[in-house]
Amino acid sequence: MSILDEPLYFGPLSRAVPRAPAHQPTVNTAAPALVTLVGAGPGDPDLLTVKAARAIAQAQLVLYDHLVSKEVLRLLPPSAELIYVGKQSGQHALPQEGIIDLMLRLAQSGRPVLRLKGGDPYIFGRGGEEAQALAAAGVPCQTIPGISAAQGAGACAGIPLTHRDHARSLVFATGHLCAAQATQPSGAPPTVDLDWEMLARPRQTVVIYMGLGALPIICEQLIAHGMAPDMPAALIENASLPEQRCVSGNLQSLPSLALLHAVKAPALIMIGTVVSLRSELAAGLAYAHAHQQAAVTRS
Amino acid sequence: MSILDEPLYFGPLSRAVPRAPAHQPTVNTAAPALVTLVGAGPGDPDLLTVKAARAIAQAQLVLYDHLVSKEVLRLLPPSAELIYVGKQSGQHALPQEGIIDLMLRLAQSGRPVLRLKGGDPYIFGRGGEEAQALAAAGVPCQTIPGISAAQGAGACAGIPLTHRDHARSLVFATGHLCAAQATQPSGAPPTVDLDWEMLARPRQTVVIYMGLGALPIICEQLIAHGMAPDMPAALIENASLPEQRCVSGNLQSLPSLALLHAVKAPALIMIGTVVSLRSELAAGLAYAHAHQQAAVTRS
Repeated sequence: MSILDEPLYFGPLSRAVPRAPAHQPTVNTAAPALVTLVGAGPGDPDLLTVKAARAIAQAQLVLYDHLVSKEVLRLLPPSAELIYVGKQSGQHALPQEGIIDLMLRLAQSGRPVLRLKGGDPYIFGRGGEEAQALAAAGVPCQTIPGISAAQGAGACAGIPLTHRDHARSLVFATGHLCAAQATQPSGAPPTVDLDWEMLARPRQTVVIYMGLGALPIICEQLIAHGMAPDMPAALIENASLPEQRCVSGNLQSLPSLALLHAVKAPALIMIGTVVSLRSELAAGLAYAHAHQQAAVTRS
Repeated sequence: MSILDEPLYFGPLSRAVPRAPAHQPTVNTAAPALVTLVGAGPGDPDLLTVKAARAIAQAQLVLYDHLVSKEVLRLLPPSAELIYVGKQSGQHALPQEGIIDLMLRLAQSGRPVLRLKGGDPYIFGRGGEEAQALAAAGVPCQTIPGISAAQGAGACAGIPLTHRDHARSLVFATGHLCAAQATQPSGAPPTVDLDWEMLARPRQTVVIYMGLGALPIICEQLIAHGMAPDMPAALIENASLPEQRCVSGNLQSLPSLALLHAVKAPALIMIGTVVSLRSELAAGLAYAHAHQQAAVTRS
């Protein structure tokens, strides 16, 4: 485990020993400072927006989530203070209320905060809740969108998210196991709170975030609600990073393929006939890769 | 109309008179060059990805669409050749097959092509079709994702696309009037080919791209399929650009508000209770704006 994985690590990257934060909350006389909610994108730092990259390069105090890649964190100035507030299933460095509280305290003490989240802060990033709390407290807040994991996965794995012949709409959902059941197994089979009827409709692409743990239930429920068992489906692990892997099959085969290939979080589930285009598009990507390798060799 | 709006304008930005393309297709002996499908994002050039901005800064031959903002086009090198292949409703510079043909010819003559599209090439950008054709022809092709208009609109207008208390899923769809009816009015009321039942389900956010012309039908159909007439809904015109406007109301009021405020394309329709958060989040954005103005004044 690297330093960056430690929950609630305070202090610049270059320091090895965690220390208390510098911002001892004192009598608050300063005007509240700006909080910037920044989408860190899917992982590849080249997929940050120009605006996000600039905010990151200037940040002095950063609250960051589990899904922010190490490659992105390396772009922060060495002097920046980092606070890890990530949430992995069952292991939260801080509950959401604690994150909001901390962010408010820091901003109200006059320290600008960069709030760094994987993907896009407004797509399953709880950025809306944080922006609400900040606004309610009179703290200035701006949001910089980010490439969502589905977009990074689509571009890097060769799966267009929409296509006239395949999908006229695109649905993003999350596939958490229901919290009570996930933490207190009661003998009852675990469930996922999703609108199966809606997800099983034809001519759309469905992307499920954070659904790896519930993959068997998701595939089973979609089939039970009328989706063909041979509907193409894929898992994309570590979208956009050099270690990205894509495992594709169909609704019936995907759960066992996930086990076979030991797919780990973070992984996205993509479902829809667009997934079948991957083999075609992979050819173009392979030519591009060979092309770029040749260019590197020549130079 | 500026030069950049002219259909099929060939040549560098600095030249005033269109000329024939320099690439006279001759006997093709060169290896095919790389085609890069690039998402130009919602408009604000700061919302390009770092990777897209780099590709744009190095481009020599560019095929670009109608929805690519002038602010983004200005980042191209002055020496770059630009070919406008945009599609506005009822006014296509080139049909899709022609675009693909041209792109293939250029790449096969050995000239690297930057294919620049508004938003994300794989979200309603027909990037999938282009990547398919390129791969089938043995042309190397890579895709750089872009911030989709919905993401730019959400961040800039203060509307989170998902939120635990409001929307557990997010749906993107397009709202074109059915083509035959749009071009050959037959007396029959125009229709939009959307899955209304799916779109009218509760606890989701629906974003409809290119739906301004069909707004009254969209609102009517969603109400007919069970959505509450007072469901919050907004139109965002020119998302992320300085001239962005957001008009919000509900399903019942939005069509007349669109007329009242003379909303023009490009505009997105956002539907769902997340839209109601806008008034709260706008406060944070206003504080941020005041904060930044003050910083500018001080410096």
